[in-house]
This record gives sequence, structure tokens and C-alpha cells, in this order.
Amino acid sequence: MQAEIISIGTELLLGEVIDTNAAFIARRLAELGIDLYYKTTVGDNLGRIAAELRRAWERSEIIITTGGLGPTQDDLTREAVADLLGEELVLNRDELEKMRAFFARLGRTMTANNERQAMFPPSARPLSNAEGTAPGLAVMKDGHYLFALPGVPAEMERMLTQEVLPILRRVAPGRPLFSRVLRLVGIGESAMAEAVGDLIEAGRAPTVAPYVTRRGETRLRLTVRAADAEEAARLFAPVEAEIRRRLGRHVFGADDETLEGVVGILLRSQGLTLATAESCTGGLIGHRLTNVPGSSGYYLGGVVAYDNRVKTDLLGVGEDILAAHGAVSAETARAMAEGVRAALGADLGLASTGVAGPGGGTPAKPVGLVYLALAWEGGAETRRHLFAWDRLGNKEAAAQAALALVWEWLRERTESRTVSPGSI
Amino acid sequence: MQAEIISIGTELLLGEVIDTNAAFIARRLAELGIDLYYKTTVGDNLGRIAAELRRAWERSEIIITTGGLGPTQDDLTREAVADLLGEELVLNRDELEKMRAFFARLGRTMTANNERQAMFPPSARPLSNAEGTAPGLAVMKDGHYLFALPGVPAEMERMLTQEVLPILRRVAPGRPLFSRVLRLVGIGESAMAEAVGDLIEAGRAPTVAPYVTRRGETRLRLTVRAADAEEAARLFAPVEAEIRRRLGRHVFGADDETLEGVVGILLRSQGLTLATAESCTGGLIGHRLTNVPGSSGYYLGGVVAYDNRVKTDLLGVGEDILAAHGAVSAETARAMAEGVRAALGADLGLASTGVAGPGGGTPAKPVGLVYLALAWEGGAETRRHLFAWDRLGNKEAAAQAALALVWEWLRERTESRTVSPGSI
Repeated sequence: MQAEIISIGTELLLGEVIDTNAAFIARRLAELGIDLYYKTTVGDNLGRIAAELRRAWERSEIIITTGGLGPTQDDLTREAVADLLGEELVLNRDELEKMRAFFARLGRTMTANNERQAMFPPSARPLSNAEGTAPGLAVMKDGHYLFALPGVPAEMERMLTQEVLPILRRVAPGRPLFSRVLRLVGIGESAMAEAVGDLIEAGRAPTVAPYVTRRGETRLRLTVRAADAEEAARLFAPVEAEIRRRLGRHVFGADDETLEGVVGILLRSQGLTLATAESCTGGLIGHRLTNVPGSSGYYLGGVVAYDNRVKTDLLGVGEDILAAHGAVSAETARAMAEGVRAALGADLGLASTGVAGPGGGTPAKPVGLVYLALAWEGGAETRRHLFAWDRLGNKEAAAQAALALVWEWLRERTESRTVSPGSI
Repeated sequence: MQAEIISIGTELLLGEVIDTNAAFIARRLAELGIDLYYKTTVGDNLGRIAAELRRAWERSEIIITTGGLGPTQDDLTREAVADLLGEELVLNRDELEKMRAFFARLGRTMTANNERQAMFPPSARPLSNAEGTAPGLAVMKDGHYLFALPGVPAEMERMLTQEVLPILRRVAPGRPLFSRVLRLVGIGESAMAEAVGDLIEAGRAPTVAPYVTRRGETRLRLTVRAADAEEAARLFAPVEAEIRRRLGRHVFGADDETLEGVVGILLRSQGLTLATAESCTGGLIGHRLTNVPGSSGYYLGGVVAYDNRVKTDLLGVGEDILAAHGAVSAETARAMAEGVRAALGADLGLASTGVAGPGGGTPAKPVGLVYLALAWEGGAETRRHLFAWDRLGNKEAAAQAALALVWEWLRERTESRTVSPGSI
């Protein structure tokens, strides 16, 4: 089965918005073993959208569109699908009611514009939108499958996952492609590629591909075709074991596991609580920790100590330390970590202080210089990093390195506890 | 003149790489007033690349391709261009020499593979690559312009800027397209569209188009063709004035201005400092505020009061308030805002408390319920929101609404101060 994606929206042709939807859909199709042959982008023009739909209908069995389902006059996907089918748009009263209920739940009034979103060609069935008002459309006819999804990424992703993929899984005859992503921290892409270069060589199955997605995180993607998930798991196991043998101290998780999630699991299993004292990261470490559902079970909170007076007044960092070493120093980081641990009554205190940039750098303390500290009962560890990103990038890299610091400490503690004395 | 972009590469169809090249090219074309009608992506398949090139040649005067110029067997753009022209590839000795010199300069040896990169159809002329080995191709024939550029973004961007845009600037007869984006908060897309529906109607210049890019922010894009930036500004002015007349209390900025940046400008100009007390947003408000360079001038820091004990111990929220109203309440939000203002000695205290989800909701306090508060000398304001996103979405929407709360307060204060007493 051959698939194609049509992204609809003038903003995509003006280059104002980068099309991340198409890549998300492409990955999901690849996982199902469905070959994607084309991706096309058209603007909000009825004639051109309809022409692309007709062309796609001629050459592909599966067509997925994104965008053009909003409430305004330039949202024309519904009209183009009707044109493709040779039908007129008809009001779907059930969908209109659902939309009314959605607005009522939020205590907002629905505008007349929104009613357009309940208009469907009779042969299309609505796809429900759990994240917003715009329902999608599904057409299944003459061996072709057309799915029109919204352009807002969160809405598109949920609708694709919940409504479209189950249908495609049933109809796709291919041997699906499975992938497993190992996520690493504390190692760069080229060092990683060097360590497992022989596994990356072409021709092997599973294939191993290195890539980088966010500052301070590198990944290895294992990909293999298999009859089912169990067979894929069997094929992945020896390769993953070899990677972990070489790079295990950098591998914090796989697939959807996040560093903050893994830290949370370790904190919970060890019955420890954490508090943060953030200067240069400005709250980003707390934000990431609290992105994990249930983080209130181990994360107590923290202090964003941006101003030096907050460091002294709320965290008890000594004026003498600040005077002798400066706010950006290992000593201040340590005092912040110890201070927030004491102030919040936490088992662990984690601190960041640095120069995010673009201003504020000096020859001795340049932009990108960051000190991190972790304090626990009876001890502390500090780390120095020099990042070379822009302001946001330096903050992101510092938050990632801070989470890595806690993760490594928790993991070593787990390992030292799980080794039985007799085995040494 | 009509243009289209063809992105070439199987990695793009697998969703492994997000196509940022197309957006970059699209913006440059828009600036030249060249209409981009289509963007297409094809994999590394000679037949399909050639077919797309032929179709593009039929309907567009300007065709820009990216990718497929590398040294390996699956780099097939040169072959596809030769196929389009009905020509054979011929070795270009000058280009081969340049490539040898490039490798020599880096102290590397050129592989036999690289020689493929010096093969050209006779009617194409090479475009020099200042960043890498792969030369591009330019074909100008029968009123059509075809440019084949490398896929590596840095190489593509430099070749486009230095080699292609000067040619297009000469041949493009169009008046350049200018755009201005008004950024709004506290209003949904459909309410916004309803308020300015007559301006959105097709056929007007400048055109006005509504769109949404992030939770809690809506945008209106004004677009117009003009001889230069000054003429564009003159054409935008009356439309922008009319939009501001109707929706002014929602418009926080334009183009690259962010809500946190505008809040920072107002705080600085009024000589005020801000502190944050975050529960459900977990540090995100602080993170956004500190993304602004120079924010240490007005943002003192804050407390992430995730655990209730942090609310009482560090922020002085009364146990009685928590007992009577709960942690998620207007009363607690207000006490947090007042508490952080006092604890940090700030002029303004901004607080969030809510149920981010997915767990923790009750019928009385459902997931998505958020209370925000702003406290100042002698007063406070609280707001209640009910968001319907996932955990991260609810945090993002709450942080956006919190920044909007400070922004509105600061703006009203500015307005009341700038109205001269005599004019009332």
C-alpha cells in the first residue's frame, strides 16, 4: 500500500511555520510498514487543494491531510474533500452538539463560525477530536483511505493515534518496521558513533542510527522489520545488550522514557525527596520535573534564586561565599544545593548557577559557564560545564546536565545497594 | 512567476529529519514577491524524482530542489535533472579540481565516490558550494529556472543566498510580499475571527489571516505586496489601527515580540520588580521570564511551591486558608502571590495553583482548573481558568495566562499614568 501526506496551509508555504506534523505521521506510517512516497504542501486555495487530492487519489491508497479544518473562511479542506467526492457539504447535527458541549464545558460560547466545522460530505465520517473543536474526516471508498486531520500538532497527533492508526493497522499488509530508541546523556554524537561504529555499519539488522534531538541528549535508533513486537524484541535484545555493555553508563532510558521521568522513578523507589535551587535555569529544572505526572510524590519544590539577595535570604548562601567566589562558582552552587535542601526539608538539593548569555560574560566567567551541585545528607558534588549555545540553549543544556547529575547519583546508589555483599 | 520546492530524500519521508530547508527557501521567495504554490517531498528514487521534476517544469517557472547531491549511490538529483533535459551526465573537470582542492585544504583524501559530484548535464551550470563538496546545479531554459541545491542546511542556505537569490532578484518581476503578525492573548481563534471577520474576507489588501501557534496565543497575519518596507508599513497602518481599535486589549505585541519580553519592557520602564510563586506551573513562568536577556534587572526569582509545606513555610500561606479552601483556590493563589512578594521584597507577586492532571481531579476541582493571582502594594487580583489540554498543555496555558495577567495590569497602569488629568 502506498501512502502520501498533503499538508494544507498558506503559512507553511510562507515558511512561517515548520511542518512537524508530516514528520510525525511519516514515522507512524514507517512503523506500520506503509511506504510513504510523497509529501506535498499546498496553500489555502480550494482549486489547488482539490487538484492535489485528485492526483493523490489516483496514485495512492492512503492519503492523510493536515490543516484547513479550522472555523475560518480560509479553512477549505472540507470543501476540497466534498469536491473530490462530488458531494455537497451537509450539517452533521451530532457533531454540532458535541462541539456545543465542548464549548459549554469550558464555559465559552460557540460562535457561528464554528458551525462550519460540523459540515461534512455525506460519504465522510467524522473523526473525533479530543483536544479541540475541529473534527477530522475519514473517507473509505474504492480501496482508498483518506483521512483529513487538523493542523494543530497536539490535536493531529491524538486523532492520528486514536482514530487513524487502528484502521491502518488492520488494512496495512506490510511487514511492519519496529524501532527502539536508546536515549543517552553525557556523551556527544561523534563519541557515541565512534564507540558503536561497527554496529552502525550498513547492512546489519537491526540497523543502528545515531541522532541528536535536543541539547544534551543523544540517541541510537534500532530499526528492524519483524512479524510482530515479540520478534522485534528478540532481534533488538543482543544489539541493545552490546550497546549497553559499551555505553551503559550513558543510557538513561529507551523510547518515550524521559530523563525527568527516570529520575522520578528512582526517587520514588528509593523513598527520597528532591528540592531545586535554580539561578541560570530560571525554573526550567522544576518545569521538567513537574511535567511528570505524580511528581508531587517526590518533588517538594524549590527556589528560583535569580537575584543574589534571594540566594542569601531564602537559601542561606553566605555573603562571604558570594564575595569570595562570585554567584557563578562551584562554592555558590554547593551552598545553594545545601541551602534548598535545608529550607525545604528535602533529602536531595539540586542547584544551578551560570551565565546564560548573551550578556554578562567575563574572560574568567564566560557566557555558557554553568556550575551544578547536588547535596545530600553528609555530602555534595559539584560539576562545571561550558556550553556554547544561545541563551535558551544554554539553559536547556544546563537543565539536562542537572537532571543527569541526580540520575547518575541515584543510579550508583541503586547499584551499590543491589549488589549483595557475598558476590563481591 | 510561480515557484515550487521539491525536497529530495528518503529520510524526509521516514520522518527522521524535519524539513527546515523548505521553510527557509519559502521565506526568501516570499520576500522577493515570488509566489510559492507547492512544496513536494520525494524519496531517493530516480523515477519519482524525475516525474516530479517534469510535473514542476510544466506548471512552474521557478523550481528549487534540495538534497540528493551527495556522493553516495542514493543521491540521484543530478541523474533526474539530466533525465528532465534529455541529456547525459558529463564530467566537469573544473569542478573536480575544485573538489580536490577542498579536500586537500582539509587534509583529507577524496574518495572515488566524490567524483560523481562533478558530473553535470551539459546545459546545467555548477553553483559553487562554499560550505561543502557538493556543487549545485542551475538550469535556465525556455523561461524556466531550475536550481538544485544540497540538503545540508548550512550549505543550502549559503548557496541559495549567494548564488540563487541574485538571479531571482533580477528575473522576478513581482512586488515583494511583506507581512506583519499581531500577537494576541486571552481570546480564542474563532472569537478573534468573528471580531475582525470583515477584514479577513478575501480580496482585501493587506490580507488578514488568523492562526494559532501555541496554547493561549492567537495571531493575525497581515500580508501585502509593496515596493518597499515603508510602503508596506503605510498599507498596514490603517488595518492594524482598526484591529487594535476592536481587539486592542488582547494585542500584546507584533512579529518577534513575546509576552514575557513585553512584560519585561513594561516592568523595566515602570521600575518595578517581580517575584513568582508557582505550584501547578512548576517553574515554567520563571523559565519564560528568564528567557529574556536582561531579565535579572526586574525578575528577582521565586518559589516553586509544589508541596503544601513549601506554601506554608516559605510563602507564609496560612494553614487555615489551606484547610478552609484547599491548595487549589483563589484564596491560596492570593496568599501565595502576597507571600512571595513579601519574602523576596518584590513590587509584584505572581502565583499559580491548579490541577495539571491527568490525576488529582475531583468533581469540585477538575483537571485543568487553575487559579492565578497578582499581588501589589495594597491590592491583589485573582483569576480562575479551566483548561482542557493534557498536563503539559495545561501548564503552558496557565503560564501564558499568568503572564497575561501581569501584562494587563502593567498596561492599565501605564495607560492611567499617561492620560493627563486635564483630558478626562
